[in-house]
Amino acid sequence: MAEVAGGGQPEAEAAELRERLRGVKHTVVVLSGKGGVGKSTFSALLAHGLAADGGRQVALLDVDICGPSIPKMMGLEGEQVHQSGSGWSPVYVEENLGVMSVGFLLSSPDDAVIWRGPKKNGLIKQFLRDVDWGEVDYLIVDTPPGTSDEHLSIVQYLSASHIDGAVIITTPQEVSLQDVRKEINFCHKVKVPIIGVVENMSGFICPKCKKESQIFPPTTGGAEKMCQNLNVSLLGKVPLDPQIGRSCDRGQSFLSEVPDSPAASSYRNIIQRVQEYCDQHRPQEEKTI
Amino acid sequence: MAEVAGGGQPEAEAAELRERLRGVKHTVVVLSGKGGVGKSTFSALLAHGLAADGGRQVALLDVDICGPSIPKMMGLEGEQVHQSGSGWSPVYVEENLGVMSVGFLLSSPDDAVIWRGPKKNGLIKQFLRDVDWGEVDYLIVDTPPGTSDEHLSIVQYLSASHIDGAVIITTPQEVSLQDVRKEINFCHKVKVPIIGVVENMSGFICPKCKKESQIFPPTTGGAEKMCQNLNVSLLGKVPLDPQIGRSCDRGQSFLSEVPDSPAASSYRNIIQRVQEYCDQHRPQEEKTI
Repeated sequence: MAEVAGGGQPEAEAAELRERLRGVKHTVVVLSGKGGVGKSTFSALLAHGLAADGGRQVALLDVDICGPSIPKMMGLEGEQVHQSGSGWSPVYVEENLGVMSVGFLLSSPDDAVIWRGPKKNGLIKQFLRDVDWGEVDYLIVDTPPGTSDEHLSIVQYLSASHIDGAVIITTPQEVSLQDVRKEINFCHKVKVPIIGVVENMSGFICPKCKKESQIFPPTTGGAEKMCQNLNVSLLGKVPLDPQIGRSCDRGQSFLSEVPDSPAASSYRNIIQRVQEYCDQHRPQEEKTI
Repeated sequence: MAEVAGGGQPEAEAAELRERLRGVKHTVVVLSGKGGVGKSTFSALLAHGLAADGGRQVALLDVDICGPSIPKMMGLEGEQVHQSGSGWSPVYVEENLGVMSVGFLLSSPDDAVIWRGPKKNGLIKQFLRDVDWGEVDYLIVDTPPGTSDEHLSIVQYLSASHIDGAVIITTPQEVSLQDVRKEINFCHKVKVPIIGVVENMSGFICPKCKKESQIFPPTTGGAEKMCQNLNVSLLGKVPLDPQIGRSCDRGQSFLSEVPDSPAASSYRNIIQRVQEYCDQHRPQEEKTI
């Protein structure tokens, strides 16, 4: 485990962060209340999708310090961070898709990072201050579930630059939606705009009989009803597809492995909507500043 | 949100904790690396299962401060903690099954608890020190995913009394198993015995055609192979059953709602094994102290 600094001077730090993130055009934070709803999968596919046409530079930052899945999902397990004159270099999947995760600092993927909050916050700060992302169109931040240290830190540190908004991932059942409502309240409190909600694992089509089952039943109307009630956009519903898990375990993009599946089509629509949101919102804000 | 104290004096505290937990015979901590693998569901069913014969007194403590699902799953949403002369009273599902969760301190179930580590640790300490559990046979502790503040705190505070062991919950796919290996390393480092691993969402039987599909495919051999490799017990595999989510959303015990299902049968076997582990281990240790 690399040694990670904790402290620093707030004002100088904000200036450093601002300077470092000056080249980042759009920042999207991916949140979920509950874990295991497909948040890292979505972050990975959002990064793949945005980088797909080769014209955009995309950065994917994994701030799930205790359970980083991004290296595995991006096919980068075992990669290490390199230090250059201008800071830490991201690990590149493609020329236009760079990734940073605590996973790249571990000597084995099974190592446990047993850290309390302040140490996690220190690493997140270091990721934002010391990683040389260069000029990037989109910085995607994958977070752990909840509303605690990592979330407060990323919002606090990124306030030196800009957050376009948050995408919140859920599954259809009420125990998951309950935590999404908490996440929405968190966004309101810390003043992060909500781009919208994605409902994952929304029905399963049996590969044998082609009939659909609700594995995580939307007993209270699912994300659709919740979004209506809370006046938040529903970006889309993605059906359960065992190929998604297989692609993740292999470190491949499900979007390019099974492009014609209903789930891939749904992900592409959602990615398109996130992109449109960013395109519409950022230029206006820049004008007013 | 109730006001929660943070500080205190370590030595006096340990004595206080020891005194308070003197009546607890067995403590089982439920862990998972990744979220959303059914950890809280397992904790809830373990508590229900152990309390089922009415002869045992069971306590269920939810230390998932930012995403408490236990009140909903136990049908206790909207309940509040009562203060008595001897401390905070648990909320009782049955006479012999008491529950404590941060959820009982919130004015609405949608309230976000936006707390950094130290405040979370303070509440966990308060749960252990101030809740009047009385004489209990089993204290089940449901934790959030990961290896951070909540986990370190619960292990540290419970070291004043005793932890029988940990049950680690996973799903079959490699991204989940990878986090379980971290959790196993965590247990080794903090010297908590591992009772065993439970593989949840292990196959899905289509209710229409009765054929089985792997929704979260065990691309690396699932929990079974991992347990063999790491010399850890596999307590059992539980198939996906949409009724589990439905029962959780309704706050009912799946074990009593659908007792004849393969999933309920598997859960009962696992609960039996946890109970046997505790019966075998605790008395010996008591003799040696």
